Amino acid sequence: MSLLVLGTVALDNVKTPNGARRDLLGGSATHFAMSARLFTQVNLVAVIGRDFPRKHIHLLKAKGVNLASLRLGEGKSFRWEGEYKKEDLNAALTLATELGVLVGFIPEVAAHQRMIPNVFLANIDPDIQWGLLEKMRKPRLVGLDSMNLWINHKKGSLLRLMKRVDLFVANDGEARMLTGEHNLIRAAFAIRRLGPKLVVIKKGEHGVFFLSDRCRFAFPAYPVEEVVDPTGAGDTFAGGLMGYLSSVGTLNEKSLKKAVLYGTTMASFNVQGFGLEKTSRLTRPVVEKRMRELMEFISI
Amino acid sequence: MSLLVLGTVALDNVKTPNGARRDLLGGSATHFAMSARLFTQVNLVAVIGRDFPRKHIHLLKAKGVNLASLRLGEGKSFRWEGEYKKEDLNAALTLATELGVLVGFIPEVAAHQRMIPNVFLANIDPDIQWGLLEKMRKPRLVGLDSMNLWINHKKGSLLRLMKRVDLFVANDGEARMLTGEHNLIRAAFAIRRLGPKLVVIKKGEHGVFFLSDRCRFAFPAYPVEEVVDPTGAGDTFAGGLMGYLSSVGTLNEKSLKKAVLYGTTMASFNVQGFGLEKTSRLTRPVVEKRMRELMEFISI
Repeated sequence: MSLLVLGTVALDNVKTPNGARRDLLGGSATHFAMSARLFTQVNLVAVIGRDFPRKHIHLLKAKGVNLASLRLGEGKSFRWEGEYKKEDLNAALTLATELGVLVGFIPEVAAHQRMIPNVFLANIDPDIQWGLLEKMRKPRLVGLDSMNLWINHKKGSLLRLMKRVDLFVANDGEARMLTGEHNLIRAAFAIRRLGPKLVVIKKGEHGVFFLSDRCRFAFPAYPVEEVVDPTGAGDTFAGGLMGYLSSVGTLNEKSLKKAVLYGTTMASFNVQGFGLEKTSRLTRPVVEKRMRELMEFISI
Repeated sequence: MSLLVLGTVALDNVKTPNGARRDLLGGSATHFAMSARLFTQVNLVAVIGRDFPRKHIHLLKAKGVNLASLRLGEGKSFRWEGEYKKEDLNAALTLATELGVLVGFIPEVAAHQRMIPNVFLANIDPDIQWGLLEKMRKPRLVGLDSMNLWINHKKGSLLRLMKRVDLFVANDGEARMLTGEHNLIRAAFAIRRLGPKLVVIKKGEHGVFFLSDRCRFAFPAYPVEEVVDPTGAGDTFAGGLMGYLSSVGTLNEKSLKKAVLYGTTMASFNVQGFGLEKTSRLTRPVVEKRMRELMEFISI
């Protein structure tokens, strides 16, 4: 079954202990799509500006991402500039954000895409996420990601949206901020009470905790010795998770565990290169090989 | 096979977000022994002062810990006072330390205990740890724990000792401090180059990473919703790990994984009460029940 993702498509300037890069293709929807495309047909809903390099569009197309609902807005593309410190590669310091075409963006979905059963609302203003959801016809599975900015400044919109989604992914800091619970297990329970029946707490290098009404489980991350650039790791994780769930079409403990493991596998590739350096070159056999390594690494 | 542990027996004053307690029975060897006694015969090598409450000795005896090499020193018992903040329950803030009888302590081992095949050097001055090891006759398995204080002030002694031990356990902060490597996978490899062929990195609520020349693996921690007092969690973990390894007598991937899981299980009980509140009341069936829950929680 196919999958539709709404989110940002960005131009990123990134600085990490391993170096710096400018004008990288980035954004929540981009990283998500580059990951999910290895599992299912991905449809992108986003907006770019007049300055957006053509080569980036070619790359997304070449990777099989459907761009029918990628709008060309008036103005400049969304830009993000961030830095990671050696002491905490899990947390990005945002140095600058230029919203550009994101201001006033109303997502449009091509008529033939409105029946797509799997929807992921990648990180973007929760009002825009709501707008997209209004346009979809009874999706089977809706996933949601957000960030500290929206938790702080648009909590009402986010909470309203959370009542309508099935799956919520958050990193540890966001889960704590949203619920006021420091303990992540309690934070996950608190998030479930806000609406989503499936809750995924991402802990970066420390792995993932999953909670639903039927089961709970945790897995460590794949052991990466050199984290080059963690930008988009969470989106890449979500892409593997939602991509796999869309491809199998079932939501039980077995498929949920496998989906989390695929997400973990995909994220491990993402952090090993700048931007999409690694994930854009991946093939499914390479993913399967690492997935087997991960399973061996964490098996009892 | 029996097990001998050298370390501290202390009186602790502890403050956590869940309350405060004074004059708790604590110390690295105590927490270790209270955990390991569920798996094998444990022999304690330590020193206490004239002020040491008789009830604590009764408790250790009642739990089957052999106290033949517990010395009564001149002076006051070792005291530790610490606090944990809500924001980071993984890290203790040491408020005060009174060495008392630890000053000049030379461990003595009863003649019949020198052939004990499994030895754990719980956290104490590395020169005292060395002194103990000199008294043992060709142990089969020697484990070592240390702390930031010794890494900073007695690094030479610690490095000399590490060449003689088989297994080294460290928490994340200690592993980074000892090796200068921020990435924990690289830190584990660096520790292995210092001598110990088995390396365990404890990450508190985030679980454990294990490295040997034959295998590497990671497990999440058991999901504890309310951490009451983490004091001694690392020692309790080591007690489960070494206790199980001593009981089975084999060192292969299967027994090492199971040992790490028992350590994880034991530590989860420890943090749920102040001091030895939980671990002193444990029976093996209760441990087995949680061990099964843990294995279900982390199974693929």
